[in-house]
Amino acid sequence: MDALFVEQSLPLAERFRHVRQYTEQLVASLSEADAQIQSMADASPAKWHLAHTTWFFETFILKAYCQHYQPVNPAYNYLFNSYYNGIGEQYPRHQRGLISRPSLQAVMEYRHAVDHALLSLLQHQDRPAFAAVLELGLQHEQQHQELLLTDIKHALFQNPLYPAYIPSEKVPESCSELPLHWLYFEGGLTTIGFNGARFSFDNERPAHTVYIQPFQLASRLVTKGEFLEFIDSDAYNNPEYWLADGWAWRQQSQQQCPLYWLRQDERWFEYTLYGLQPLDRQQALIHVNYYEASAYANWSGVRLPTEFEWEYAVNKQLVTPDKNKGDLAQCFGCAWQWTSSSYSAYPGFRPFAGLAGEYNGKFMSNQYVLRGSSCVTSAGHARTSYRNFFYGHQSWQFTGIRLAQ
Amino acid sequence: MDALFVEQSLPLAERFRHVRQYTEQLVASLSEADAQIQSMADASPAKWHLAHTTWFFETFILKAYCQHYQPVNPAYNYLFNSYYNGIGEQYPRHQRGLISRPSLQAVMEYRHAVDHALLSLLQHQDRPAFAAVLELGLQHEQQHQELLLTDIKHALFQNPLYPAYIPSEKVPESCSELPLHWLYFEGGLTTIGFNGARFSFDNERPAHTVYIQPFQLASRLVTKGEFLEFIDSDAYNNPEYWLADGWAWRQQSQQQCPLYWLRQDERWFEYTLYGLQPLDRQQALIHVNYYEASAYANWSGVRLPTEFEWEYAVNKQLVTPDKNKGDLAQCFGCAWQWTSSSYSAYPGFRPFAGLAGEYNGKFMSNQYVLRGSSCVTSAGHARTSYRNFFYGHQSWQFTGIRLAQ
Amino acid sequence: MDALFVEQSLPLAERFRHVRQYTEQLVASLSEADAQIQSMADASPAKWHLAHTTWFFETFILKAYCQHYQPVNPAYNYLFNSYYNGIGEQYPRHQRGLISRPSLQAVMEYRHAVDHALLSLLQHQDRPAFAAVLELGLQHEQQHQELLLTDIKHALFQNPLYPAYIPSEKVPESCSELPLHWLYFEGGLTTIGFNGARFSFDNERPAHTVYIQPFQLASRLVTKGEFLEFIDSDAYNNPEYWLADGWAWRQQSQQQCPLYWLRQDERWFEYTLYGLQPLDRQQALIHVNYYEASAYANWSGVRLPTEFEWEYAVNKQLVTPDKNKGDLAQCFGCAWQWTSSSYSAYPGFRPFAGLAGEYNGKFMSNQYVLRGSSCVTSAGHARTSYRNFFYGHQSWQFTGIRLAQ
Amino acid sequence: MDALFVEQSLPLAERFRHVRQYTEQLVASLSEADAQIQSMADASPAKWHLAHTTWFFETFILKAYCQHYQPVNPAYNYLFNSYYNGIGEQYPRHQRGLISRPSLQAVMEYRHAVDHALLSLLQHQDRPAFAAVLELGLQHEQQHQELLLTDIKHALFQNPLYPAYIPSEKVPESCSELPLHWLYFEGGLTTIGFNGARFSFDNERPAHTVYIQPFQLASRLVTKGEFLEFIDSDAYNNPEYWLADGWAWRQQSQQQCPLYWLRQDERWFEYTLYGLQPLDRQQALIHVNYYEASAYANWSGVRLPTEFEWEYAVNKQLVTPDKNKGDLAQCFGCAWQWTSSSYSAYPGFRPFAGLAGEYNGKFMSNQYVLRGSSCVTSAGHARTSYRNFFYGHQSWQFTGIRLAQ
Repeated sequence: MDALFVEQSLPLAERFRHVRQYTEQLVASLSEADAQIQSMADASPAKWHLAHTTWFFETFILKAYCQHYQPVNPAYNYLFNSYYNGIGEQYPRHQRGLISRPSLQAVMEYRHAVDHALLSLLQHQDRPAFAAVLELGLQHEQQHQELLLTDIKHALFQNPLYPAYIPSEKVPESCSELPLHWLYFEGGLTTIGFNGARFSFDNERPAHTVYIQPFQLASRLVTKGEFLEFIDSDAYNNPEYWLADGWAWRQQSQQQCPLYWLRQDERWFEYTLYGLQPLDRQQALIHVNYYEASAYANWSGVRLPTEFEWEYAVNKQLVTPDKNKGDLAQCFGCAWQWTSSSYSAYPGFRPFAGLAGEYNGKFMSNQYVLRGSSCVTSAGHARTSYRNFFYGHQSWQFTGIRLAQ
Repeated sequence: MDALFVEQSLPLAERFRHVRQYTEQLVASLSEADAQIQSMADASPAKWHLAHTTWFFETFILKAYCQHYQPVNPAYNYLFNSYYNGIGEQYPRHQRGLISRPSLQAVMEYRHAVDHALLSLLQHQDRPAFAAVLELGLQHEQQHQELLLTDIKHALFQNPLYPAYIPSEKVPESCSELPLHWLYFEGGLTTIGFNGARFSFDNERPAHTVYIQPFQLASRLVTKGEFLEFIDSDAYNNPEYWLADGWAWRQQSQQQCPLYWLRQDERWFEYTLYGLQPLDRQQALIHVNYYEASAYANWSGVRLPTEFEWEYAVNKQLVTPDKNKGDLAQCFGCAWQWTSSSYSAYPGFRPFAGLAGEYNGKFMSNQYVLRGSSCVTSAGHARTSYRNFFYGHQSWQFTGIRLAQ
Repeated sequence: MDALFVEQSLPLAERFRHVRQYTEQLVASLSEADAQIQSMADASPAKWHLAHTTWFFETFILKAYCQHYQPVNPAYNYLFNSYYNGIGEQYPRHQRGLISRPSLQAVMEYRHAVDHALLSLLQHQDRPAFAAVLELGLQHEQQHQELLLTDIKHALFQNPLYPAYIPSEKVPESCSELPLHWLYFEGGLTTIGFNGARFSFDNERPAHTVYIQPFQLASRLVTKGEFLEFIDSDAYNNPEYWLADGWAWRQQSQQQCPLYWLRQDERWFEYTLYGLQPLDRQQALIHVNYYEASAYANWSGVRLPTEFEWEYAVNKQLVTPDKNKGDLAQCFGCAWQWTSSSYSAYPGFRPFAGLAGEYNGKFMSNQYVLRGSSCVTSAGHARTSYRNFFYGHQSWQFTGIRLAQ
Repeated sequence: MDALFVEQSLPLAERFRHVRQYTEQLVASLSEADAQIQSMADASPAKWHLAHTTWFFETFILKAYCQHYQPVNPAYNYLFNSYYNGIGEQYPRHQRGLISRPSLQAVMEYRHAVDHALLSLLQHQDRPAFAAVLELGLQHEQQHQELLLTDIKHALFQNPLYPAYIPSEKVPESCSELPLHWLYFEGGLTTIGFNGARFSFDNERPAHTVYIQPFQLASRLVTKGEFLEFIDSDAYNNPEYWLADGWAWRQQSQQQCPLYWLRQDERWFEYTLYGLQPLDRQQALIHVNYYEASAYANWSGVRLPTEFEWEYAVNKQLVTPDKNKGDLAQCFGCAWQWTSSSYSAYPGFRPFAGLAGEYNGKFMSNQYVLRGSSCVTSAGHARTSYRNFFYGHQSWQFTGIRLAQ
């Protein structure tokens, strides 16, 4: 798994530059209007992501560690604070798409001013006091890199012209099909959670003992073609496969297929970051929510894994950086994998110290843990112990299914 | 009143160029992001106004009268159709702010392509068959010029930076204070509605006889200072002055002053197209809705005029183009004036022929008629018989109060 | 028309007893559970009607004119006040169905205690000071008699057993078919409104001059059979016939036929106070809302009358108490008739004095005037000048259509 | 713990009679109107509980095992089916309060007819084939006995008269204060879940091994007096103690104290089944939701236990039937105790066979497990392995807090 952490071995300043530049690369193909739009309260405009990640460094490092620092604009503390009540009030989340000013240009200048100040601060220090919070800021920005992609995908999809985020010569969003077999795991006492010296989020800690029953795990993710069988069997209209909350979601949303799937003249298409494409049945399924994942597992006569089973299995198996190789394939770089585990604190959990304590802990209710990483997760931002989490009805992330039994 | 119609005396092609250019002038100060945002379903992005007014000419003239015309983009018929069911389906109104593509640049090219085609069509004809619908298109565009201004004002107001639409050296939004006196009118049988050869909307016709009781009309509009007395008497919290629907709106909105008014450190400010400004008590009040207008009239012990009283009085009096002169001042160019008249058909009303029949008639329910014109109404777009209309709860137009008794 | 006022010629005490007893007669067939239920915020439980009408007499007469009067229960002033802000706060309207106590028995005792006190007060006075407000209370109770019937009909309809309010041997709800012809009226100056010595509501006054254009009025109401043609022509799915607000209602409600109509095995049924019945196509149509009435008129190529046209025509014609006779039939006792007139104040309107001033005036927005009376209007509670009013989307009253052109 | 299962030792027929009679006893003090009302979609009318529990026996036993059985009324299958999609459609849950017919009397007759048929069926069989489903029906009815009480409490509370369900001479709803100390548990490998021969729900099975870290558990529940300190410290207005979802609930509900608490003239009162009572600070706290429980634990610097910790501790300790005695007091008979455990399937979970498979499994999302039992739980309906579950925002059950660390 070491390959996943390669970035951390770079000097901090260089790593900082890399991460910051990559975010700007992601918006290179966007117009100012593209960067402005917000399609739902769960998603944010690309411009807001650019500004918010900058606000994070400004707030938690420059204001805290840089004497005489003058904020670029005091109003940004209100506009670009996401959810840190300890820092102050926040501009209403569902209205982020209305902030036409500062302009995209002004936000870029904000980024560069903060970058400049932060790099100056770093210049004379090898192990700065704020190294840990800087690392957190970089991890945070990587999380927003993925969110920026999922959010712009959702926003552009609202446009009946189905514009592409980038041209289609690029690699596909999803992973190819592999043979499916079931891998058996014996279980027993095992250690779950992060125990190393490198960075991890507070929610991955502390490492602790868990007892696991014997189980089997599918060697790869469910494919789009397999999920079509679920659709074709009319399972979207049969309550017996669904959780009660899932059925309520189905009734209310009237959904009959995954997000981004479209049926035109008897043929299936899928909206991708490369525009509208014919559905590729060989690829791993993405963009299902927890309810769809659970219903598919029920329909298949099996179940979703717990997050502990997933982590234990990945620790046990040879998981290669090449996502389509190895006994247990497609663990990383393909699709986040819904687990049946509710997002909650590990025994002895302690939130990050200080104001960043609001980072993870307060979200530990009503959400489900996803494990692995997706094809749009930033390089170096995946770990076996990593815990992603979303609500059961959400499907705009690159979320798929690995079955267990 | 002739001064109000001066534009119509120009040749059609010249007039077309003037109107089209003025719309583009209105967006000259906007960034692409400004032109993109939509703050509520009632309002539209500036870019959408630019495109929709163009779509109107393309749909009702070029497609109908220009052989071999190729639409600029077939998808625009869905994207930029406002509410013409006869033409086809419409993109959901509340999502207009999500259409980042076509870009502002592409919309400008759309405008110019349609302008070019239309001017070519006009070139060889003095009295074209489509003259009436062209005039309608121009009037329609003028209506959208005012809407563009009211909508961008509302959108920019959502931004806590309170950005100005244009710099503040410009003239004030509203009219200055004048002495108030009551003008007595005898009433009797009179003719209401438009009866001339020039353009009028279908809803102003036919001219017809109405019997009016004697009444008095205020010589000017209510000022902001006068309305402050209403606020200071706690009338926003006293149901006795309010219509039942108005009180329900008050309870639900929790509003305590007109839209755009802000109280900071014991001082009143008002958001204007020139940014946040100290409230000028001398100016005519704007941005009250029908319920606030009705409550203010009740609190004052008088009432709002009917639309017939208003039209009859303006016809009787010397109304000068200088909006602050004359016995009956501020009829035009200051603020639209709420009347107590529900928007309904005149006896013998016939909608415009053809697909434009959806222009006015279908909105004749639950709305109230406003008379006059405002400081942001386009030059040449005001008439004594003109009937503007909005719902009782709406206040983002430049709407004020003239009292009657 | 004198026949319509017969009750008023009785001595006040006797008339009081008659009206009060008739209300109790109306609930004789209801169980305590029937009297408890409330199917929507617009409707009230039968028990609440029994109590509220009693509260009216207690509040406006006993508390005002009866020295040393002790209220039956001080809490009733909160529970049974409908909308009189001047009297005090009101229990939330949509929760009236939750008030299981006081019991039906206790409410009956409340009625009898108030009746007793009021009749004692009346005993020694021929022309009491409160005669006018007593008359208002009786008119008010008659209005609630009709509401009680429309509300219990709506409530019982929610039950899939479709229970009958009373057995079906009773007379039908609606009027029989008559030949249709158009009656021509010349119009001109006429007097509208109530001008007599007897009781009328404040909203019918003052009588005033109105100028009316020539028009024609249908000699009878639209029948259910005629409305079926509208349905069969798919007009519920064709926006061209609908007001914009009407179409929005149609889209949101997904309604495809009038309230209470049901289609089972290719046959049409209608829920009535006598239970589920086969639809009788000969009968006058009831239970359409304003939007449906307006769409039907458009589809028919004609329009709805104004309230002035209706009143003028009824004044001109021989309207007999026998509702199916006369040139202009079915004016009263059949179905309330939607007019295109928005509910607003007559010139010189003055609300009732005192706290009863909230009776009518504050509702003068966004509602439409209905004229005539229905088959469930209490005897003696109809007048040519009577103005009933409801919102455009409401159809649970006995509301029908008379066409004009 | 054996005392908790005493009822099961009775012969089935006798036990059936006892359980059925107890339900009827619970409604003895209710009028027909009381039994009719429904205050929210989560709650049901008492009459509906009476009918639904009867429908359960009729559907799952009489229709399945009794040849030639004629349903009492075929419509009841629609009206009184709660959520069994496998059985058929259900009458909308939020409208249960509108079913005035069948009357309370008719529902009682329904109960007695089904009781009679079932007892006849039982008469000649000692170990009937349907014994397991009969036991399930009895457990089901006991669950509804508690729900009937929580629902009628909520319904009567909507009445500003605050009527008592029963007179106040009765025992208090809650448990008295005890000294608080922390009990230490070592943890390790333990068995969780039900493993016996007696009845248990499917969600308690299978028993399985779990590894538990060392922890401490409070010896008693949090009291109302202790919770007042939380209120007095303004913790309801301080987001730092709240889960993000909890804070969203707080913002939206504007709640400032537990459900049923009222502050009048500087004094605290609590609505109880015995009417409005002064708040007794010595008693165990009830009627907090998961968010309030979690915020209280955070504010106290500790946490809620997991359901495994709770079950392990109760198994380890001497838990006496006398709820206020023993080292670990108030485990049963006082208040359901929120755990931090999301409601999910035990490893190897299998739903009940057949149509009763919808009983528990489909609710395993977004809910939290509560352990123990409350003062209104029916006698004999408590088990160490019992898993109750509700959504985080719900507080109308008798739910309290036991702290852990």
